[in-house]
Amino acid sequence: MQIDNDLAKNLELVYSYQKEIFVLQQTLALLGWDERTYMPKKAAESRAEQNAFIEGLIHEKITSEKLYTALETLKKERLENKEALMIEKLHKEVLRARKIPKELVEEIAKIASIAYNSWIKAKEESNFSILAPVLEKIVELKIKKAKCIISSNCLYDNLLDYYEEGMTAEKLRPIFEKLKAGLKELLKRIENSENYKNQKIMPDKILEARPQLELARELAKSMGLSEDNFRIDTTEHPFSTKISSEDVRITTNVRKGVFNSLSSSIHEMGHALYSLNLPKEDAYNILGQEASTGLHESQSRFWENMIGLGRPFWEYFFPKFNSKYNLQGNFEEWYQDINAVFPGKIRIESDEIHYCLHIILRFEIELGLIEGKIKVKDLPKVWNEKMKEIFGYTPKNDREGVLQDVHWSTGEFGYFPTYAIGTIYAAQLYDSIKRDIPNIGGDIFQGNFSRISEWLTKKVHIRGSKLLADDIIKNTCGSGLNPEVFLEYLNKKYSEIYDLEKIKTSN
Amino acid sequence: MQIDNDLAKNLELVYSYQKEIFVLQQTLALLGWDERTYMPKKAAESRAEQNAFIEGLIHEKITSEKLYTALETLKKERLENKEALMIEKLHKEVLRARKIPKELVEEIAKIASIAYNSWIKAKEESNFSILAPVLEKIVELKIKKAKCIISSNCLYDNLLDYYEEGMTAEKLRPIFEKLKAGLKELLKRIENSENYKNQKIMPDKILEARPQLELARELAKSMGLSEDNFRIDTTEHPFSTKISSEDVRITTNVRKGVFNSLSSSIHEMGHALYSLNLPKEDAYNILGQEASTGLHESQSRFWENMIGLGRPFWEYFFPKFNSKYNLQGNFEEWYQDINAVFPGKIRIESDEIHYCLHIILRFEIELGLIEGKIKVKDLPKVWNEKMKEIFGYTPKNDREGVLQDVHWSTGEFGYFPTYAIGTIYAAQLYDSIKRDIPNIGGDIFQGNFSRISEWLTKKVHIRGSKLLADDIIKNTCGSGLNPEVFLEYLNKKYSEIYDLEKIKTSN
Repeated sequence: MQIDNDLAKNLELVYSYQKEIFVLQQTLALLGWDERTYMPKKAAESRAEQNAFIEGLIHEKITSEKLYTALETLKKERLENKEALMIEKLHKEVLRARKIPKELVEEIAKIASIAYNSWIKAKEESNFSILAPVLEKIVELKIKKAKCIISSNCLYDNLLDYYEEGMTAEKLRPIFEKLKAGLKELLKRIENSENYKNQKIMPDKILEARPQLELARELAKSMGLSEDNFRIDTTEHPFSTKISSEDVRITTNVRKGVFNSLSSSIHEMGHALYSLNLPKEDAYNILGQEASTGLHESQSRFWENMIGLGRPFWEYFFPKFNSKYNLQGNFEEWYQDINAVFPGKIRIESDEIHYCLHIILRFEIELGLIEGKIKVKDLPKVWNEKMKEIFGYTPKNDREGVLQDVHWSTGEFGYFPTYAIGTIYAAQLYDSIKRDIPNIGGDIFQGNFSRISEWLTKKVHIRGSKLLADDIIKNTCGSGLNPEVFLEYLNKKYSEIYDLEKIKTSN
Repeated sequence: MQIDNDLAKNLELVYSYQKEIFVLQQTLALLGWDERTYMPKKAAESRAEQNAFIEGLIHEKITSEKLYTALETLKKERLENKEALMIEKLHKEVLRARKIPKELVEEIAKIASIAYNSWIKAKEESNFSILAPVLEKIVELKIKKAKCIISSNCLYDNLLDYYEEGMTAEKLRPIFEKLKAGLKELLKRIENSENYKNQKIMPDKILEARPQLELARELAKSMGLSEDNFRIDTTEHPFSTKISSEDVRITTNVRKGVFNSLSSSIHEMGHALYSLNLPKEDAYNILGQEASTGLHESQSRFWENMIGLGRPFWEYFFPKFNSKYNLQGNFEEWYQDINAVFPGKIRIESDEIHYCLHIILRFEIELGLIEGKIKVKDLPKVWNEKMKEIFGYTPKNDREGVLQDVHWSTGEFGYFPTYAIGTIYAAQLYDSIKRDIPNIGGDIFQGNFSRISEWLTKKVHIRGSKLLADDIIKNTCGSGLNPEVFLEYLNKKYSEIYDLEKIKTSN
């Protein structure tokens, strides 16, 4: 009796601690959302204090003796499967957190907040030296953090694991090599095609924001997103964030590229669907969260690329879009234009083929930074050299080069690879859904996304984090992270667009 | 040496606890701001959890043994004046907080969050019964809270003291009686005037929001508010909130009344100036905060009424306003119109004379609620009877009656009187500033508000809460809360507008 009682008490403690931690994380998410959308400039310093303090509280909770002791005890108990899994996952988190001093957590949070604003300024003025000193500090602190954890010999893995549990640089390297080779090969074929040589790139055109936002909101509805659960705002670097299991915030902005804002909205709405369709009963425990950043990204990429850049989608959507903007072109031209391949300098404006090359570049650089082989002060030089090597040219300035992304300034090392992971996963999911829903193109063509949304929820969202991301994909698609499927998808799609079969025959 | 060391340690603890408490309060302020501006509807429940949890944390901090022990020890030490004062004030807060169970604090926070949304719905549908059950619960909990504190025999005082330290129902009653009598007398004189009898009320007109927001932003600059420190958003019930000493959020909305949105912006900008001009060095301790809600309100009322409804202001501002809206009237008509006196049903749309009558009505009712003499279920009836008694008519429905204000639904009992207190203080400050800056009208006429802002900062803002609000007013104006000065101000202004002297002579 006494034992059962202790068991119940310990379980209760574990549940209530988790809830507190998640509520604090939600609060932190709101502080972050506000910081990047509406916060007045001069509040940067006080926001840094607020972020650091809440981060510190979370760390205090997760490393507390009480939680640790309860978990250690519960690990020895016979629990039903789901609870045992929860305890195991949480125990792993707690052990990792307990290796990191609270001061370090707070220091990183504080400096990341300040660096975010330095990045904005540095980018505005296209001057890396504005960001350099604070970035140097961040790299130093992240290395320090990785050294505290040291569950892998590779320092970088300790950071990567926060975003992509179970993934390592060693696993990624050959996958990225294969991917790089495949992408370069496809690019070469495209570049040799008549279509590519004759391709007229649509002039970069900034389309008014309001109609794009209106269209995004309309689309959200048909994707199954309710305005009662999410909102769209504008920001410098679009993101989405979960404030609670019923409240997801999407952001977008308007930049070069004909439908950039709409496209980034579709992307973020994919994220939102994932967050809102997680198992509600586990909203406040570790099993009810997104399985990994890469899997999160697979959801956004799926909607952005496989749906939002696909032929059936635009057959459905082109008239709506055209009626807002009167683009003066026919559908075929439009479809070719939005899928036009060309080496761009900016990752988030990149076509589907170049995109992952951008990621591989960043992965190689950040790996070097954390391993101490690349110095912060050399970043612009290293960046430009790698761009030359992979893309064949040098960025005009830092804004177009090393300063284009926010991630490093906010300390997110190990994040970039998840974009490529997600992109590959998305292609794998697309491959599977086409088998499960044979006439998926027909649904899309009619603007009917409900079967797609439901499939994704059933196969991915509702599983929460009961499995690792790679196992969720393996379960659904038959294999884990598999660049071949993505390359096949690209080859098929772009062979059509650039009429590559013709070349093969003629050669 | 040891003693000095302990002293330093205790002081350090007190400072760091205060900082943590203020940072948590700032976080809570952001949760609240978001809840009333941008939060998706279905997030209400999770927001309630978040609010309750942070409230609980604040309570935990402020009631902690460590802080209590440090304060008890420090109270016996010889400290320099300012520190001694800080310890004394904080000790008082801590003692009060320690009387209230954490569960009660969390329960109130949670239900207030839920009730806010019930209020929105009840008001939309003009149906008090939607709010009634949850409001009953709130009143019950607030009475429970007041009973925990019991530092005054009058239960209500224990709640009032949170907003207006040192103020009591007993002190307020005769002041409000005098005020009520004076207002009614002035109203009678106005109602007997030829001008009143001939007065054509401008039709209620909803002027587009955007130009009003633009004008408000322009005005903010000349009042000394920087866009780097504040922002304006829209909401149901306008408010302003301090997210940090460098970050104040103003809200407004557009409703009936020709310049309602602008007027409410001016009001909230008065609040913002106060919050942003508090002593920065005390931002994270109890001496650097606003002295009371009433004094806060004096700042908004000063700008809204004494400046924003005054003749010199509109002599300066009418052309600007007119150029946005083309109102097709001359300045004299406009000035008379915006100051037209008539018994309105809605407090926040009320003229300067009726306004405090609205407050007195609410004060009498909430006093009755907390003393148990009025039941929640009878509120619509009681409200309508009092309206009939004081204003001479009955509201058409609950939306126009008991549901018009948010305060009770969020548990803010003891808040309403501070509107009248602030209004009176504002008149006292106006009376004093005219002596210190003889040609104040000339400044306003030129749209130059810098001397006024500076004076308010020097006399009020920068003092923080080192003195009680009433003592700050006494120091600056020669007497504490004094309705006579306000009545004099009204008599003078409205005698002119309604040509009351003429009546006197002719009678």
